[in-house]
Amino acid sequence: MSFIATPQSMHFPEVLTLQSGASIRDYHLAFETYGTLNADKSNAVLVCHALNASHHVAGVYEGQPKSEGWWDNMIGPGKPVDTNRFFVIGVNNLGSCFGSTGPMHTHPDTGEIYGADFPVVTVEDWVNAQARLLDRLGIQQLAAVLGGSLGGMQALSWTLQYPERMRHAVVVASAPNLTAENIAFNEVARRAIVTDPDFHGGHFYRHGVIPKRGLRIARMIGHITYLSDDVMNEKFGRQLREGMDLKYSTQDIEFQIESYLRYQGDKFSEYFDANTYLLITRALDYFDPAREHANNLTLALARAQAKFLLVSFTTDWRFSPQRSREIVKALLDNRRRVSYAEIDAPHGHDAFLLDDARYMSLMRSYFDSIAKEFA
Amino acid sequence: MSFIATPQSMHFPEVLTLQSGASIRDYHLAFETYGTLNADKSNAVLVCHALNASHHVAGVYEGQPKSEGWWDNMIGPGKPVDTNRFFVIGVNNLGSCFGSTGPMHTHPDTGEIYGADFPVVTVEDWVNAQARLLDRLGIQQLAAVLGGSLGGMQALSWTLQYPERMRHAVVVASAPNLTAENIAFNEVARRAIVTDPDFHGGHFYRHGVIPKRGLRIARMIGHITYLSDDVMNEKFGRQLREGMDLKYSTQDIEFQIESYLRYQGDKFSEYFDANTYLLITRALDYFDPAREHANNLTLALARAQAKFLLVSFTTDWRFSPQRSREIVKALLDNRRRVSYAEIDAPHGHDAFLLDDARYMSLMRSYFDSIAKEFA
Repeated sequence: MSFIATPQSMHFPEVLTLQSGASIRDYHLAFETYGTLNADKSNAVLVCHALNASHHVAGVYEGQPKSEGWWDNMIGPGKPVDTNRFFVIGVNNLGSCFGSTGPMHTHPDTGEIYGADFPVVTVEDWVNAQARLLDRLGIQQLAAVLGGSLGGMQALSWTLQYPERMRHAVVVASAPNLTAENIAFNEVARRAIVTDPDFHGGHFYRHGVIPKRGLRIARMIGHITYLSDDVMNEKFGRQLREGMDLKYSTQDIEFQIESYLRYQGDKFSEYFDANTYLLITRALDYFDPAREHANNLTLALARAQAKFLLVSFTTDWRFSPQRSREIVKALLDNRRRVSYAEIDAPHGHDAFLLDDARYMSLMRSYFDSIAKEFA
Repeated sequence: MSFIATPQSMHFPEVLTLQSGASIRDYHLAFETYGTLNADKSNAVLVCHALNASHHVAGVYEGQPKSEGWWDNMIGPGKPVDTNRFFVIGVNNLGSCFGSTGPMHTHPDTGEIYGADFPVVTVEDWVNAQARLLDRLGIQQLAAVLGGSLGGMQALSWTLQYPERMRHAVVVASAPNLTAENIAFNEVARRAIVTDPDFHGGHFYRHGVIPKRGLRIARMIGHITYLSDDVMNEKFGRQLREGMDLKYSTQDIEFQIESYLRYQGDKFSEYFDANTYLLITRALDYFDPAREHANNLTLALARAQAKFLLVSFTTDWRFSPQRSREIVKALLDNRRRVSYAEIDAPHGHDAFLLDDARYMSLMRSYFDSIAKEFA
């Protein structure tokens, strides 16, 4: 069993101005910390989360032995990111549905639930909010910012927004922006949610309903894109759900893969907020640090001062190795110190969350080297 | 402008027993023919269609200059499949919504619209129905059966069901069965349709509504999988719809790719039948000639007598070249005569419908060689 984690919450009464020009005030950030901040506050690692995750990165909650954090295999005492040496901080992002202020909370100006009126938040906004949390925790400079997928985008953005507040960026299974195909999948998922009659323009809370049909479809699409074709063939292939005989039905489950997807969709629709889904996929779509530099990523990354580790996975078609290599090239153009590993793993995008001996050993050795800087 | 095509219809009063054990009677098949059947009836080519297509393969309808058939670039006078030499037959499959008997027609036993009660049809059933149409047209042996994608599956199935009734099979951008990922995409599309409140269990006709939300989502998913990542980046990239400024909205269109997908979804939902979508994607899922041969494709294809041309496209991730190579290998194991071309084209699965000089020239030269057999 893992160690016990304790969620915390920090209130921010002041106004945070967002990239869109809108602002938010009186918000909370849910967070957790593991390990002990050292005397000169030089051993802090911030972990940024992706779509369906939270501040609960590692450990389990008291009395809930199955409540492991989403990166519990990576972070903890003796783990690759060793909390005996590092002070690890997980923060739930604004707009999420796992504890930080989000669409299901009350707008302080109106006393109404935000719903669709929750402001659009970007990766940059999340990073700004995370920086304020660090201010309150008294941490001036992070040993590292670490994230996978959308979390990797936040780690990358940290190096541009707060270049002097971090020494390392660890960017796993990520990309400098989404491709048209990525945006397309996000858009289909959003349309499934928004056109669900139970969505009510995003104000479904006051109707006492949840747009579960849309959330199910969104999650099913997501699951297909997180896995590789190979791993789907290996796990499910063309296996029928019930024995050898076909039922000849268009609506009943016939293949195992259908059963798996429906189950994942059902489960997700029980706990994930529809407005959060829209917000987080939009933040993914918008992230594009090169946009304000005439799409020149080298120019965009010139501000970065951190040392970098980038990791990609060969079968990840959502954030392919090529996208990581674009970041590596732009950093090398700027003469930054970059380590890059392309892990030959069969699991697609999901690989960044899974145990792979080479991946784990690489992360361990990189964080070992970071630890030597303050040991 | 292309030549004038004239749709025809054939009535089949007799019972067709389906693979599921169900049967259908009193059905119509819509079809078109181009060119002239020669005296010994040896120049007939059957063209099988994929999901969103029909018997209207080539030519235009009288007075409708923009009504080109879906493979008008491939088939016609002087085209690669030259109707000055071949007698080409296009048939709309059972269960479709473009003229042949389908879910929106009346069940002869009940006098009610079939709707969800239309029997599940398979590739094998379609081939059997096509063979009966050929019987009625007095054609004993086809010069070739030609199809792309799901149409290619029909061409392949023809070689197994009626090995002596054809001399050539031309199987383009196809596969010996769907992968788990393919089935998964079909299942998400079906769930979007079936869970649309306007679907009414498939009997939406009697409610005077159409499950357009579901059809839109299904079509958007389809479009993503028909295109390659590369061609989407080239056509749309991260271009914004309106100038340079972001709107910061989760529901409005922001990127061009979103606009394209919504437009395609809207258009499709205006004319495609929801039950047909379920039936055709299920026929795709079920096709698997190796299933009854312990998943040994070599054993499954032993019955085939035809000469084969297989064509695949490098960027087709829906029916990848590897899947065509599986068919090629199984045929070579059986010492069949096989030509195979892997066309380096950027357009993904859609490439089989598009003009590509090498593809067109290859098809032309193969059909020229077929024509020499009866010239």
